[in-house]
Amino acid sequence: MPAANADHAAAEPALANFADRLHEAISRAGTPACVGLDPVYEKLPPSLRRAQSGEAEAILEFCTGVIDAIHDIVPVVKPQSACFERYGQAGVRALRRTIQAAHNRGMLVVLDAKRGDIGVSAEHYAQAAFGGEGGRPAHAADAVTLNGYLGPDTIEPFLARQGRGVFVLVRTSNPGSDAVQSQRLADGRTVAELMADQVAELGRAADRIGACGLSSVGAVVGATKSAEAGALRARMPETTFLVPGYGAQGGTLDDLKPMLRSTASAADSGVIVNASRSVLYPTNPANPEGSDYRSAIRDAARRFADELRSLFA
Amino acid sequence: MPAANADHAAAEPALANFADRLHEAISRAGTPACVGLDPVYEKLPPSLRRAQSGEAEAILEFCTGVIDAIHDIVPVVKPQSACFERYGQAGVRALRRTIQAAHNRGMLVVLDAKRGDIGVSAEHYAQAAFGGEGGRPAHAADAVTLNGYLGPDTIEPFLARQGRGVFVLVRTSNPGSDAVQSQRLADGRTVAELMADQVAELGRAADRIGACGLSSVGAVVGATKSAEAGALRARMPETTFLVPGYGAQGGTLDDLKPMLRSTASAADSGVIVNASRSVLYPTNPANPEGSDYRSAIRDAARRFADELRSLFA
Repeated sequence: MPAANADHAAAEPALANFADRLHEAISRAGTPACVGLDPVYEKLPPSLRRAQSGEAEAILEFCTGVIDAIHDIVPVVKPQSACFERYGQAGVRALRRTIQAAHNRGMLVVLDAKRGDIGVSAEHYAQAAFGGEGGRPAHAADAVTLNGYLGPDTIEPFLARQGRGVFVLVRTSNPGSDAVQSQRLADGRTVAELMADQVAELGRAADRIGACGLSSVGAVVGATKSAEAGALRARMPETTFLVPGYGAQGGTLDDLKPMLRSTASAADSGVIVNASRSVLYPTNPANPEGSDYRSAIRDAARRFADELRSLFA
Repeated sequence: MPAANADHAAAEPALANFADRLHEAISRAGTPACVGLDPVYEKLPPSLRRAQSGEAEAILEFCTGVIDAIHDIVPVVKPQSACFERYGQAGVRALRRTIQAAHNRGMLVVLDAKRGDIGVSAEHYAQAAFGGEGGRPAHAADAVTLNGYLGPDTIEPFLARQGRGVFVLVRTSNPGSDAVQSQRLADGRTVAELMADQVAELGRAADRIGACGLSSVGAVVGATKSAEAGALRARMPETTFLVPGYGAQGGTLDDLKPMLRSTASAADSGVIVNASRSVLYPTNPANPEGSDYRSAIRDAARRFADELRSLFA
C-alpha cells in the first residue's frame, strides 16, 4: 500500500468499522503480529544516545527506525503511552510523530494508554487518543486500551468514534493480577469473566460487529493466562483478543491456542499477539556498538511473524 | 506561606510523608476542600476565548486565574488530566504550568489521571506524574489517582516516591459504576470492598502511615455512594477519602458524614472533598460578558469551604 494512501486512510478510515480495518491489515500481512513500542532510553543503541538532542528525540528516532524496519512484516504497532508521557510535552510530541510514522507506513496503531474515566472526562480522553471532531487532533490512534473498572458508561464515549476501536483490560499477565481479576463472585464467575461478559455485550451493539464477524470492542487477555483463555473465548466469541506477554514475558505458541477463534487464517483468528522486548532489543548485549539495530530488529520481527503464522492452516 | 518557600517545598518536600503534608495543608486552611480543575474551553469566560492564542493557552490562563482566586481559601487542587491531554503537547505543557502555578501559591496538587499499568510502565507513569529521580521532571504533582484493577503490584511503583501520595479508585459516582464495583463476591464482600481492603493493606506498610495517623495511600469514594461509605470507612480507618461528586453531581453535606474519620477537625477528618463545576462555573449563564470571573469563583470557593467547615466541631 503506498504511503500517501495509507496516510489518507488513517485520517479518514475508508472502512467504517475498526474490526474490518484490522481484519484487512492482518489478512494482508498473513500474521496477527503486533510489535509493542516501549522505548526505554537506557536501552537504545549507543548511536542514538550520543546524539544529545534529548531523550524524547532519541526515542522518536528509535521508534521511527523500528517502524521503517518492520512495516512490511507486521501489521500493527502498540506504542506504550507511559514511555512517552514520562518526558512531558516533548514525549507527547514524540508519541504523536511515532503514530504518524506508523500511519505513513500503512500500519494500524493501538495506543496502549489503559485509560478509564467518567462522563465528559472519557470524552476528553477519546479526543486525546483519536483526535478529530472539533479541536486539534492529538494522537489519532486507530484503537486504544481501556480499563473498565468504572463501568460500561466509561467505555461508551470511545465507541462513538467511527472506524476506531477499543481493547478493554480483562485478564492481565502481571504477577499481582489475581488479586482482583481472579476473585470469585457469588454467581460463580471470576471478576475477569464478569468483565469479559461486559465486553461481549458492549461489542454486540448493531454497528460494532464488522462484515468480518468480529467486533470493534476487543479485550486484553495476557498470554500467560492460557488456562483461563478457553473460558474467556467462550464468553467473547466475536471479540479480538489483544494478547501481551508473548516472548520475553514467558507466553508460548501453545498458550495462544485456546485463545484462537479459528485456525483457518490469521485474520479470522480473533487475536493480535504483542511482542515488545524480544523484538525491540533482540541482541545480547542490547544493540552493541556499531551494529545496525534496524536489521537485527527486522530479523526478530520476521521470526516472530513466522512463529505466529505456524498457528494457521 | 511565601510563594518561594512553597515552591521549594514542592520540589523537595520538607515533610517526608504525603499524609502529613496534606494534614498540615488542611489544618492551615481549616477546611478539607479541593477544587477540581476541569477546564472546558467552551465554558471559559468570553475574554479568554477571544484571545486567539489557542485553546491550551486559554485553559492555562483560566486555571492560573482560578488558582490566584482561591489559593488562600482552598488547600488542594485536582487537575483533570484528560482536559489537558486532549490538546496534545500544548495541553501537557498547560498542565505542567498549572501544577507549577498551584505550587507557587503553596497549594497541594492531586493529579487526576486514573493511571494503572504493569511493571516498568507503572514506573514510567510515576515518573510522568511526580517527575524527579533522573530524567526531566514531567508534572511533579504531589499525588495521583490510580486504577487498581491490575493489582497491588501496579500501585507499588508510585509508593516508592518519598513525600508523594496516591488515591486508588474504590467506589465511583458515575451511573454505570455498579456494573463492576457493586458485584457481590462469594465471600460476601462487594468488589469495591475488596478494593478497599487492598488499599488499606497497601497503606499500612511501615513508612506510609504519617505522624498524623493517616496513610499516604488514599481512596476515591464518590459522594453519591453515601449508603456504602460507613462500611468502606470501617475497612479503611487510616485512609484519606478523596470524595468527588459533591455539589453539581448531587452529593450533599449529609452524604459526607459517614465518610468522616473524626469530626474534631478538618485535618483529622480523613476526607478531602472535591467540587469542580460548582466552583469553576458558578454563574448562570456561565461567566457572563464583562464580569470578573475570578471574583465569582472566589465567592463560590469560599461558600464551598465554609459549608465543609460546618461539619467540624
